[in-house]
Amino acid sequence: MSNPGVAIIGVGQTVVGEHWGRSLRDLAVDALLSAIRDAGSPRIASLFVGNMMAGELTGQAHLGALVADFAGLRGIEAVRVEAACGSGAAALRLGCMAVGSGAADVVAVVGVEKMTDRPAAEVTASLAMAADGDYEARQGLSFVALNALLMRRYMHEHGVRREEFAPFCINAHRNAVGNAHAMFPFPISADDFSRARMIADPVSLLDSSPVCDGAAAVILASVDTARALGRRAVRVRASAVGTDTIALHDRGDLLELRGAVTSAARAYEQAGVKPADIDFFEVHDAFTILSVLSLEASGFAKRGEAVRLGLDDEIGLDGRIPITTMGGLKARGHPVGATGMYQLVEATLQLRGEAGANQVRNAELGMTQNIGGSGATVVTTILEAVA
Amino acid sequence: MSNPGVAIIGVGQTVVGEHWGRSLRDLAVDALLSAIRDAGSPRIASLFVGNMMAGELTGQAHLGALVADFAGLRGIEAVRVEAACGSGAAALRLGCMAVGSGAADVVAVVGVEKMTDRPAAEVTASLAMAADGDYEARQGLSFVALNALLMRRYMHEHGVRREEFAPFCINAHRNAVGNAHAMFPFPISADDFSRARMIADPVSLLDSSPVCDGAAAVILASVDTARALGRRAVRVRASAVGTDTIALHDRGDLLELRGAVTSAARAYEQAGVKPADIDFFEVHDAFTILSVLSLEASGFAKRGEAVRLGLDDEIGLDGRIPITTMGGLKARGHPVGATGMYQLVEATLQLRGEAGANQVRNAELGMTQNIGGSGATVVTTILEAVA
Repeated sequence: MSNPGVAIIGVGQTVVGEHWGRSLRDLAVDALLSAIRDAGSPRIASLFVGNMMAGELTGQAHLGALVADFAGLRGIEAVRVEAACGSGAAALRLGCMAVGSGAADVVAVVGVEKMTDRPAAEVTASLAMAADGDYEARQGLSFVALNALLMRRYMHEHGVRREEFAPFCINAHRNAVGNAHAMFPFPISADDFSRARMIADPVSLLDSSPVCDGAAAVILASVDTARALGRRAVRVRASAVGTDTIALHDRGDLLELRGAVTSAARAYEQAGVKPADIDFFEVHDAFTILSVLSLEASGFAKRGEAVRLGLDDEIGLDGRIPITTMGGLKARGHPVGATGMYQLVEATLQLRGEAGANQVRNAELGMTQNIGGSGATVVTTILEAVA
Repeated sequence: MSNPGVAIIGVGQTVVGEHWGRSLRDLAVDALLSAIRDAGSPRIASLFVGNMMAGELTGQAHLGALVADFAGLRGIEAVRVEAACGSGAAALRLGCMAVGSGAADVVAVVGVEKMTDRPAAEVTASLAMAADGDYEARQGLSFVALNALLMRRYMHEHGVRREEFAPFCINAHRNAVGNAHAMFPFPISADDFSRARMIADPVSLLDSSPVCDGAAAVILASVDTARALGRRAVRVRASAVGTDTIALHDRGDLLELRGAVTSAARAYEQAGVKPADIDFFEVHDAFTILSVLSLEASGFAKRGEAVRLGLDDEIGLDGRIPITTMGGLKARGHPVGATGMYQLVEATLQLRGEAGANQVRNAELGMTQNIGGSGATVVTTILEAVA
């Protein structure tokens, strides 16, 4: 996708939280219109909406047409994209194809999810649709249970104690304090982490991202169009999807996120870079264990060693590989179909030097990784500040 | 999308019907593997799955990864696309972008829907998610009700009697007889149509397409790759999405399918052709009234005059503009997320001269139109036989 070159020319986001007074369409339209304004209000040709569960949780499918309609964009091309919790970045990938193929000049991509209007049991059941419905979900495996299996196996295989995962949670919450759009903008201590309520042993409340609502959006154009429009652009150097078995039990090795290995390798190849070139990495910390596996799969730590990055404080804003720089899924929040777009909006702000107190110094190359299911879909995106 | 030029190099489909013994994944994999074989088993880089309701009706989201996994394509890029009943052709549109952008060399697109495992009331409610959930569906407007409003208005405005719609149903059933994949391969008489049980006056059972299961797939490649592979190719001359208000009550004119007007106009422009150049037209006859409105919106009849095409026998295989040449949604069946792909598979067979008893003579340019909701998303595709 690096030729002819696609750029992000505008971003928008809502606060993540429990938006009981605002509907799915309100949130999507809010983020989308913010992004359009930020891009200087260009004419939008195509819209891609990333969403996982609007049908199950709000009784609404057909979000492409719905959002286009209510955003004042009636008539334009508009389609919904779904790849479970990886829907947001998958929508960006398709937006890049639309620009790259010449099918559309300026493209809008919005990720949205509305989860808090339904009872928790319904939300848990809907999330489980990202796993193998027939062979995992119907046997009672929820996502917290699936991640508990992964975390337990990791602890067993690498001799890691539960407390050693604490730095990932502490880092995310510390960074959320500086993010006005975060759901949980307050610090967490190691002591809080140790005493956290157990959800599915060894996954505690503080290993888990919250159920919430939110929407985030970007505007894409070719690098040439971005220049013609006179917009400050962040270049999409790579956008790559990798997949793996949908069910955990079909994997030869539980602790290798092969979808992430594939997706990251494709992204590095597209961009012509290596892990050492990446200045910060927005990981998909839906559960702490996913941060660890993602760092290892993407080449930032050897197998069994990513926990050390946390213990050695290498994941903070001044560390070797800053992660979850605006709070991550844990503390900014995880409105699932929107999460990939939040990561991309935050990475764009970092690369535009607009991350405020959370600014990663001299950030030139940022990476995001958005994960669907138990790593069955992984979307890795590499963005570059344009000088 | 005509440059560098995308071609269909393989097609596959399951029989449409009540597949009580086969799951969603079985159907999708069956159609997909048939298409891959038909294409000479090239290496697939990306998969797009068109589906509307797998989450609601089968408890399974994340169909991209699921289908890739079970089709033996683990690791490849795979994403689900949803645009209500227009999901199938929307997935093709994105597949064309993937090839056109250079992101993927050979792409698979499969449409699938499994509707018959749940009670009818649940299916009706799930289908209603294609309308405006908050302002139409929750007020009790099902899709048969929405189409009854359109048909009643058409009869009132143009002075058409219910019996005058009969030729559309008769033509579809006549053509289904020659289609081994059709759900209802038997003829219907004008008398049958007149006496059909009323569902939502004036929409009768014989105006309505059935609830059913099925999957259909195509393999896409650039025209150059198709040549290199030595495959008989059908060229995608145009693929265009148009949208309209999601709710009927927001339209200034109920009887103009503006999404179809826009989509068809874009497709004609992409292909550089006009309606008179089209040799056959696979319309989205989910309800009879939609065939009529689609023909008018796409330039085959003036406003209020498409019913005449049926009465004058212009829609048959030897007519001026043959429609539903393999039975259409009415008689081949309408597994919603798969329907757009069935239309494309059938159009490809026509253009390859493989439509058997249903062959449209000298078919060189075929058009399909796949409609989501009450015309809120319309995807028009124009295919050309490559000499």
